[in-house]
Amino acid sequence: MIKKLLVANRGEIAVRVIRACKELGIETVAVYSEGDREALHVQLADEAYCIGPTASKDSYLNFANIISTATLTGADAIHPGYGFLAENSAFAELCRECSITFVGPSPEAISKMGTKDIARETMKAAGVPIVPGSQGIIKDAEEGLEIAEGIGFPVIIKATAGGGGKGIRIARTKDELVKGIQVTQQEAMTAFGNPGVYLEKFIEDFRHVEIQVMADSFGNVIHLGERDCTIQRRMQKLLEETPSPALDGETRAEMGLAAVKAAQAVDYTGAGTVEFIFDYNSNKYYFMEMNTRIQVEHPVTEMVTGVDLIKEQIKVASGEKLSLTQEDVTFKGWAIECRINAENPDKNFMPSAGKIQMYLPPGGLGVRIDSAAYPGYTIPPFYDSMIAKVITYGDTREEAINRMKRALSEFVIEGIYSTIPFHLKLLQHEKFVEGNFNTKFLEMYDVMNS
Amino acid sequence: MIKKLLVANRGEIAVRVIRACKELGIETVAVYSEGDREALHVQLADEAYCIGPTASKDSYLNFANIISTATLTGADAIHPGYGFLAENSAFAELCRECSITFVGPSPEAISKMGTKDIARETMKAAGVPIVPGSQGIIKDAEEGLEIAEGIGFPVIIKATAGGGGKGIRIARTKDELVKGIQVTQQEAMTAFGNPGVYLEKFIEDFRHVEIQVMADSFGNVIHLGERDCTIQRRMQKLLEETPSPALDGETRAEMGLAAVKAAQAVDYTGAGTVEFIFDYNSNKYYFMEMNTRIQVEHPVTEMVTGVDLIKEQIKVASGEKLSLTQEDVTFKGWAIECRINAENPDKNFMPSAGKIQMYLPPGGLGVRIDSAAYPGYTIPPFYDSMIAKVITYGDTREEAINRMKRALSEFVIEGIYSTIPFHLKLLQHEKFVEGNFNTKFLEMYDVMNS
Repeated sequence: MIKKLLVANRGEIAVRVIRACKELGIETVAVYSEGDREALHVQLADEAYCIGPTASKDSYLNFANIISTATLTGADAIHPGYGFLAENSAFAELCRECSITFVGPSPEAISKMGTKDIARETMKAAGVPIVPGSQGIIKDAEEGLEIAEGIGFPVIIKATAGGGGKGIRIARTKDELVKGIQVTQQEAMTAFGNPGVYLEKFIEDFRHVEIQVMADSFGNVIHLGERDCTIQRRMQKLLEETPSPALDGETRAEMGLAAVKAAQAVDYTGAGTVEFIFDYNSNKYYFMEMNTRIQVEHPVTEMVTGVDLIKEQIKVASGEKLSLTQEDVTFKGWAIECRINAENPDKNFMPSAGKIQMYLPPGGLGVRIDSAAYPGYTIPPFYDSMIAKVITYGDTREEAINRMKRALSEFVIEGIYSTIPFHLKLLQHEKFVEGNFNTKFLEMYDVMNS
Repeated sequence: MIKKLLVANRGEIAVRVIRACKELGIETVAVYSEGDREALHVQLADEAYCIGPTASKDSYLNFANIISTATLTGADAIHPGYGFLAENSAFAELCRECSITFVGPSPEAISKMGTKDIARETMKAAGVPIVPGSQGIIKDAEEGLEIAEGIGFPVIIKATAGGGGKGIRIARTKDELVKGIQVTQQEAMTAFGNPGVYLEKFIEDFRHVEIQVMADSFGNVIHLGERDCTIQRRMQKLLEETPSPALDGETRAEMGLAAVKAAQAVDYTGAGTVEFIFDYNSNKYYFMEMNTRIQVEHPVTEMVTGVDLIKEQIKVASGEKLSLTQEDVTFKGWAIECRINAENPDKNFMPSAGKIQMYLPPGGLGVRIDSAAYPGYTIPPFYDSMIAKVITYGDTREEAINRMKRALSEFVIEGIYSTIPFHLKLLQHEKFVEGNFNTKFLEMYDVMNS
């Protein structure tokens, strides 16, 4: 078993990992940037070390400083959380070379899934449905035009090195396509150091449904059901729930199997998520991408399955077998997560960093808070804006919604703006309550003025 | 269904009831004493009214002010919480006369169970095992002596109007018995207005195991398993867990049935708890008393059964049938509750009222907080000293314990002393970890210096 684990992250996910380690009796090492000296994860870990200046590239993305901190403190494992180095195959490779356990899949699996056009081809070969599109990276705009005319407009131009809503552009006409390919290639080169783009048919009316998978190093792969992450703003998820209100049992089972196939195709180990475009009009689903890490929204799965995904990650990385088989996985009730961001929903979600003067998270039955905030904490403007995840559980969707409304209504955050008022509006929106929406929900409805 | 509910209580249980009402769409009315103007329950309710001076007898026990507040605000129900008016049959009777739904059993059931010698006889008649003792109230010391010699010393002298550890005295000799009867009679007269006492054989080496029951007005009665409340200090519970580490499956099933019989014997409705003396040496159990109300430790039952006991109380009081049958009740995992009191465990648990300067409750998977505290809240010295209940859930007892240690280690309460250091010591005590202890645990071991 891992004895001492370095958490190469910050914020609520660093706190989440430290908590799991404490419960498992594993010592923890926190790392932090100069801008994060007051951060909660620094206070909760057994040891904490500054690894560089505030800019992420100099601290949370600094391979050398992180690896040397692990070596000097005798940490035998690194948990990357999400974001930062979580899907960086070079970092995973470096951990391997330094004989440090990387809590995540192999560098090869990360790499295969991180290169989106290779992932597409791998999925196709494994029998996982993919959206019609180019076979691999397109050479130039001319080839792009030919493919787009074959599959029909609109199409989506995707950087092969992108992901999580970045490096994506939609084209509805030939002109948009030609320009879009060039711009996306240039942007991808700048952002990811890889100009490769590929094309897919753009499905406009869909829900984002993803499947949680977990695999050990003995070849066992299970899925833990779906999460519906359709409520997004500019491709950033705001609210997630499980089960999905849009799936029937048969489709759910099929998608679970497809996700297991996807993981098996890359010899996956650890926790991962296979994201699907779910075309609820035709009940068809298509592989979107696989996130080779734990996700922000993992708690909703934990609430309905009873499985502690972070502990399971750590155990599997320690060389243990999965603690349960597919038959052992059961689902009970409904769970919803609201991401509370330091943003002003009345001012177009403008970031609102600053000092939290008063802070009191909600409590009681069926309410879980994952957060790194505290009274008097100053939110640094340099990182992401999420201050807390509120997760509620209920026997039914209605109960989970009512509990979330209750919880958010008593959540006190003073000194900064937060997205709590947005979520309270969303939760009582007729279309949300009906479960009748797609990823354009927030473009279609002015939630704040509803 | 109840439309508007007045919560005749304060502190965390008032908050708990308000939360349940919000989730059910029921309007809430809070009442408060002059000393509780800043209390959280006042802030969370839809309406709040001051019902008198700080002294409980003038406010939270003030029949007239509470009933008139209900009438004037149009509240159609009153939830009494625990303590104060929760087991006051005269108040329940007054509610009935005023056509206000009392969320609890009938005045008759409260009365039968509240008069301890009558409860004993009722249980005996219903076939629920009772501790050997006097048949009803004893006339005088002479009768007491005769009975004590029959059942053998030591014996326990109990005020029939007592309960919850009050109005109780142990006698190991004839002298102690004669004096004890007189003193207990006098005390009982002063405290409860009823001098009646009865005798029971004093079982010294036992665990406190209680069964949660729930009954509707259609005659359906179910039990929801046991809670082990053996860890007590001066008969006040400090830590509760379910399941009990000391029960085998057969005894558990028998005790559940006995508790159902106990409830049926008094035509019980709503939530109640049948407390047993569990003699683990002989695997025998004896009726101790029935608490005709919700209990402080109800959350551990909610965690392992998934049943929201407060919502169930409200639904049953509204005239609904129980939402589940005995067969529907399932148990999963392990739950522990630690009562965090404003007391200094290093100074013999001396009360430590005052202002909470900094407050940050723990969060994350499997952690539930029921509390009415907040940063800047001044704990009034007039009421009980409990500031928070921390409840943890785990797949196993070990996981629940480790999670509790993790949660308590990150619970920040500054400005006052709390019993968190005591619980952290307790949770790592060898005998506690083994599950090998009786109600004298804290007399036998110096936990703070272990």
